[in-house]
Amino acid sequence: MDIEAISQERRPTLLARGLSWLRTCFAKYKDRAVDIGKSIKKIGQDDPRRVIHSLKVGLALTLVSLIYYVRPFYDSYGISGMWAVLTVVVVFEFTVGATLSKGLNRGFATFSAGALGVGAQHLACLFGEEGEPIVLGVLVFLLAGAATFTRFFPRIKARYDYGILIFILTFSMVSVSGYRVEKLLELAHQRLSTIIIGGGICIIVSIFLCPVWAGADLHKLVALHLEKLAIFLKGFGGEYFQSVNEDKAVISTSEKTFLLGYKSILTSKNMEESLANFARWEPGHGCFRFRHPWKQYLKIGALARQCAYQIEALNGYLNSDLQAPPAFKKRIQEPCMMITSESSKALTMLASSIKFMTDPSLAHLHLHNSEIAVDNLKILLKTTSLEDMELLSIVPAATIASILIQVVKCIEEIYEAIDELSHLANFKSAVKPRVSPEKPQAQLLLHRGVVKSIVVDVGGNDGDVVVTVLDDKIPENENNSRAHNPDQPL
Amino acid sequence: MDIEAISQERRPTLLARGLSWLRTCFAKYKDRAVDIGKSIKKIGQDDPRRVIHSLKVGLALTLVSLIYYVRPFYDSYGISGMWAVLTVVVVFEFTVGATLSKGLNRGFATFSAGALGVGAQHLACLFGEEGEPIVLGVLVFLLAGAATFTRFFPRIKARYDYGILIFILTFSMVSVSGYRVEKLLELAHQRLSTIIIGGGICIIVSIFLCPVWAGADLHKLVALHLEKLAIFLKGFGGEYFQSVNEDKAVISTSEKTFLLGYKSILTSKNMEESLANFARWEPGHGCFRFRHPWKQYLKIGALARQCAYQIEALNGYLNSDLQAPPAFKKRIQEPCMMITSESSKALTMLASSIKFMTDPSLAHLHLHNSEIAVDNLKILLKTTSLEDMELLSIVPAATIASILIQVVKCIEEIYEAIDELSHLANFKSAVKPRVSPEKPQAQLLLHRGVVKSIVVDVGGNDGDVVVTVLDDKIPENENNSRAHNPDQPL
Repeated sequence: MDIEAISQERRPTLLARGLSWLRTCFAKYKDRAVDIGKSIKKIGQDDPRRVIHSLKVGLALTLVSLIYYVRPFYDSYGISGMWAVLTVVVVFEFTVGATLSKGLNRGFATFSAGALGVGAQHLACLFGEEGEPIVLGVLVFLLAGAATFTRFFPRIKARYDYGILIFILTFSMVSVSGYRVEKLLELAHQRLSTIIIGGGICIIVSIFLCPVWAGADLHKLVALHLEKLAIFLKGFGGEYFQSVNEDKAVISTSEKTFLLGYKSILTSKNMEESLANFARWEPGHGCFRFRHPWKQYLKIGALARQCAYQIEALNGYLNSDLQAPPAFKKRIQEPCMMITSESSKALTMLASSIKFMTDPSLAHLHLHNSEIAVDNLKILLKTTSLEDMELLSIVPAATIASILIQVVKCIEEIYEAIDELSHLANFKSAVKPRVSPEKPQAQLLLHRGVVKSIVVDVGGNDGDVVVTVLDDKIPENENNSRAHNPDQPL
Repeated sequence: MDIEAISQERRPTLLARGLSWLRTCFAKYKDRAVDIGKSIKKIGQDDPRRVIHSLKVGLALTLVSLIYYVRPFYDSYGISGMWAVLTVVVVFEFTVGATLSKGLNRGFATFSAGALGVGAQHLACLFGEEGEPIVLGVLVFLLAGAATFTRFFPRIKARYDYGILIFILTFSMVSVSGYRVEKLLELAHQRLSTIIIGGGICIIVSIFLCPVWAGADLHKLVALHLEKLAIFLKGFGGEYFQSVNEDKAVISTSEKTFLLGYKSILTSKNMEESLANFARWEPGHGCFRFRHPWKQYLKIGALARQCAYQIEALNGYLNSDLQAPPAFKKRIQEPCMMITSESSKALTMLASSIKFMTDPSLAHLHLHNSEIAVDNLKILLKTTSLEDMELLSIVPAATIASILIQVVKCIEEIYEAIDELSHLANFKSAVKPRVSPEKPQAQLLLHRGVVKSIVVDVGGNDGDVVVTVLDDKIPENENNSRAHNPDQPL
């Protein structure tokens, strides 16, 4: 009985099998649909301007289709109105700069190629009815070939690629179709004016309805990259030296992925370059005038990438199985932590110097501190006796120290590039730090030998910035007595 | 008299001034023209396929303009023939994959959007003459907005971006123009067939006239990247340790820039990804079948980039002002040189394993040697006493040793990825190394402790590959006695 029941259970009816198959299918598609829904939501949430852009494209297309619906427009343009639709679809891009670049490229290319095409027509006419198609064919072949070749020039490709494409297109169409269509000039005129209408609608919607400026995006992106580097450096010290402090509160995984934000900098070159290319086409907007020095952002971006390469090497040692002996780690901990924290602060200030367009002099003080910390680290490494340690075991820690020294060099270069930018773009001067004698002296133990040490704290209570130049030895217990001013003057 | 003559010389006549101005202008423009000529020549020489591509575009356009010239074609297509011209200009790309991707995207998008557009027309008709434009406007707005939003999905953007653009274009044009043009289906049919003619000409010219395959390019690019890494590693050892050998024959600058070839790997991600995307569309060609595992190349490329990041850190130490004391450099020179030369050989073999599609097992032997050299370096670092040296001064050299160890790890991962590729793509098995007893035993001093050491030399005289497994200690003077077989079996 039992066995029979089991075998019956094992042989489900066709209906039951079908039902279960349907159920699996449904569940699978439901999961899929939920996944798609989630990714749609994520893409929208990551940058809500994407949703707005989609609506703007819909709006521009609906506007341009008025050309068909409204009688007077249709009477004058007829079927050529579709060029306006085509222009809107092809020209409307996410950023104003890209839209302007494509629109202007399209306009100028259509105009010049149209004129050349009409000229080619006239030239070909001189060769009689039989010679005409041959001459036109040769001209199209030569011009298309030459224009295609110019698209391989990197500088032309970056800025005028679309224009050249439209140039080839219009020239071929005008010169070839002229062979049949008698009303050539009318065609050229219609095409040009519909393109101007389409391009105009694109540019107006793009600029006046929640504009997305490539320049502002580039500006933010470069500042964000510096912030990401700062976040890594800030977290790195604590992460690497945590085991020394017996403080086994391991950083959570989410925080660790936060540390890896810098990875996106490694491959950001193309994005920065295309944003800078589009930014050139944009009119003045926000705090940016028409000829804002966008090229300088590329320089800063390249230096940030250089720094990210160093940090990538650093990151490899974070989870290395070969750990230095705690005694050695402890010895280099103080200057290393000082380097990471001060250079992280310098980077944060450089980032906000870009963000708020103030001159980067405040960051210089932190940079100076990290340089002093580098000097201290060097002195420490010089005086460390290794009699009780193996060289092999301290190599990773020594490597980290060495790379940190390189990172500080890198940040110095970034500082100089931002300083140059601040001159080129007339950044506002930052709040001038002044010495306030009534405050408790801000002090920092960065002092070994005769190295001068400067500390500035902009996180205080009343907007004052305290600068203290220490010229002499300080007792160690004053290490953490710092003035606090929370009003960020940046 | 003299003074007068001088003052006359100082006041040249208007004519002379004009002439000199003209001469300067002419010289300037001549220089400019020479510069442009040089850069044209350079771009053509860098990749002669660019010249061929330009000629191919010219040819395809001349072919498609036949539609206008030949009477039967013109009779059936009329002015719609310009869609074919437009298709050729827009679809023809440098690689076969890109052309196919654009052509197929354009074809399918036109077909589906055309069908949907006709459907939208019929739907709108149901709402009467007044409701029709409103319904059409709403439909265009919704569809264009939704389709534009899908372009933000990274996977869709990579493969179907152009298709979606054409989809929006065709749908708007068909549904909107349908409001006026009565012969809607005829228009759709003409547009589709001219696009097929234009796309067909592109694809045929692209495939059958000196084709440029994106897949083959990706294949070569990845192999080239490994070679560039190998060149750096090969040169690095000699460059860094040259001062130790008192061999002051400084490497020439041209050779140094040769060393920097790896820099292009750092920013190659986008290029590799777009080539892989295009390669997917290509039919089988050369040694590649239709579904060749192109994704695996991206994995290898990413690992090569990882290795390049490490090498970028290494390169920073090459010209560092802080040099390790010669005594210490000399101590680590042997294993470090062994690591660089063996890992360079391993990379060269991995590159040719990709190039000639043979399995990468031969590289494994060199990889194994470099691992042994790493072990030796570690032992050496363990046993080095530092009583007579400052830690600070040896930090750079220790860092280099440490990064070299990371590089070997990286190359191991590259080896594994290529091994996976060789299984996925059924690479030919390489010439099996066999032990040849009649040869002088190939030996290598990689032997400290009980580490097994294997040496293979494929640079010998008669195509034989000699493999020697050393299981016991070898006298130090046999260090350089290697078997030579110059016939590269790869």
